[in-house]
Amino acid sequence: MTRPLDVDLRHHGDAEVGDGLADFAVNVRTGTPPAWLAERIRASVADLAAYPDPRAARRAVARRHGRAPGEVLLTAGAAEAFVLLARVLTPRKAAVVHPQFTEPEAALRAAGHAVRRVVLGKDFTLDPADVPGDADLVVIGNPTNPTSVLHPAGAVASLARPGRTVVVDEAFMDCVPGEPESLAGRLPAGIAVIRSLTKTWGLAGLRAGYVLADPHLVGRLADAQPLWAVSTPALVAIEACSAPEAVAEAEAWAVELAAERDRLAAELAARGLYVVPEARASFLCLRVPDGLGIRALLRQRGYAVRRGDTFPGLGPDWLRITVRDRASNDVLLRMLGELGI
Amino acid sequence: MTRPLDVDLRHHGDAEVGDGLADFAVNVRTGTPPAWLAERIRASVADLAAYPDPRAARRAVARRHGRAPGEVLLTAGAAEAFVLLARVLTPRKAAVVHPQFTEPEAALRAAGHAVRRVVLGKDFTLDPADVPGDADLVVIGNPTNPTSVLHPAGAVASLARPGRTVVVDEAFMDCVPGEPESLAGRLPAGIAVIRSLTKTWGLAGLRAGYVLADPHLVGRLADAQPLWAVSTPALVAIEACSAPEAVAEAEAWAVELAAERDRLAAELAARGLYVVPEARASFLCLRVPDGLGIRALLRQRGYAVRRGDTFPGLGPDWLRITVRDRASNDVLLRMLGELGI
Repeated sequence: MTRPLDVDLRHHGDAEVGDGLADFAVNVRTGTPPAWLAERIRASVADLAAYPDPRAARRAVARRHGRAPGEVLLTAGAAEAFVLLARVLTPRKAAVVHPQFTEPEAALRAAGHAVRRVVLGKDFTLDPADVPGDADLVVIGNPTNPTSVLHPAGAVASLARPGRTVVVDEAFMDCVPGEPESLAGRLPAGIAVIRSLTKTWGLAGLRAGYVLADPHLVGRLADAQPLWAVSTPALVAIEACSAPEAVAEAEAWAVELAAERDRLAAELAARGLYVVPEARASFLCLRVPDGLGIRALLRQRGYAVRRGDTFPGLGPDWLRITVRDRASNDVLLRMLGELGI
Repeated sequence: MTRPLDVDLRHHGDAEVGDGLADFAVNVRTGTPPAWLAERIRASVADLAAYPDPRAARRAVARRHGRAPGEVLLTAGAAEAFVLLARVLTPRKAAVVHPQFTEPEAALRAAGHAVRRVVLGKDFTLDPADVPGDADLVVIGNPTNPTSVLHPAGAVASLARPGRTVVVDEAFMDCVPGEPESLAGRLPAGIAVIRSLTKTWGLAGLRAGYVLADPHLVGRLADAQPLWAVSTPALVAIEACSAPEAVAEAEAWAVELAAERDRLAAELAARGLYVVPEARASFLCLRVPDGLGIRALLRQRGYAVRRGDTFPGLGPDWLRITVRDRASNDVLLRMLGELGI
């Protein structure tokens, strides 16, 4: 059944910040882009008079994931990938696994497709049996925004079957050290993986992402994509961030992040809050009685957290909190304490 | 009648350069972006961690053309505008006025629309009567790539009628001092104008353009556009290039360009070549017996000119030459002389 658009799918964390608020709402790493990357991007300005040439960046992404260049489509952020997939695929029955990032469903609806929402049960873990057998398109996030849940690669891969395309949004996969549950390097038949440079590298403003899929689907997406879709600065960034040294740098950050995230989660749980367990991304999802009211009080004090009620499957008692460094997180914990949490 | 895809609509000048060839093939101004603009773009790298916010750039474009912000859609280059229009409009009879930039037709075909080609007659001037009365979408360039012809605003505006959308590609309009034939500032009902920053400002690699249209069409295009479609550096450039001082700088360049273009055209015509008369953009379109052969010989000598045979309505005897500075143009003239032209 197609559910009504009962929440604002186009609300995103960037609308929650500004006005000098400390940002616990947008899932972009603090202090990014790093100086070496910013310098590479600035240097690319010297080449702007020429049209973009995506070949080197495409090869770099292919190498990074052990794929062939023909399995890579570079996109102006993951958001463009969702729109291209929504336009090229013609699902009779599209299923979107919620709670998740809302743009895939918004893009499908904008392209005129009906969407069935599959809302996950206890602790938001994936039970493949929840996905309708007749769905010919399934969209799932891994790890999932906003729940931070990482599904096992085997469970996600088991969703594939003849006549069905499974789109796995791995925009936050580089938060997971070693990426053991990523399908990017395996790419089973019928599975398309979407990746982003936005969060780990602090490039939300640059629009840099990519799709990994079989060459036939990549070709169809490319045909639907505007010419020269990815800018030269974004191509430079994609190439740079796909190099082994960059991947190692991200991995080191992911290890640090994991320790601080788990500490923050334990602190919040110790206060009696339900924190979605097994968080593996750069944010935590929690149930707080009157979450929207708490969010408003935090804003008065200068702290922005992400409302949860615009995610299908959550509601007004839910918040998403970006994990920052220990000192910043402690300030947020203190603020919550002052509000009786 | 829908004509077959008898030429490669996806061939563009950027595929003709490289390998150290002197570039008379790509219509991007030499020595661009200017230092002040490059500096503004480099400075924007400090803001890349935040998602793009298009509001200031949109207001700047609106002011530059005397329109309301609701009449402006910022796009990742004119190429994205063509794709969005092709997706949102559902023409029963689309007519594309040729010769012209081939991406609009390619985008319409990619979106599944049949396209009727209207090939202009003598000197490639517009006779509105050539456009089929039942066309509900008409695409025309002004001034036109590759012919360099500037159609009178009145003739273009006369194409508008109830139930028809006229898309005017004004990507090269800022080559025309004072822009007397632009419809950007008038925007008659049923007319959408596409503009680009690519050529005059040397931002081909950045992907920066916009559509001016009635707010209803702008809203429909926006709904079809990926979220955060235009990058922060592109937004910074759009805002900067819409400022009065930038418009004045472009105007001064256009005046210089006009003098040198007219000199080059006269030199070529004096050699007995047919140069499409009344050229008003940054390039010349000429008929040269065995143009493709001449192009090949020029490449051997280190000079790239744009083949004309991939433009519907031209053929193997046609070339497009970008107007450079006087010294560079003289070198090209000498080379042509050595080839007996």
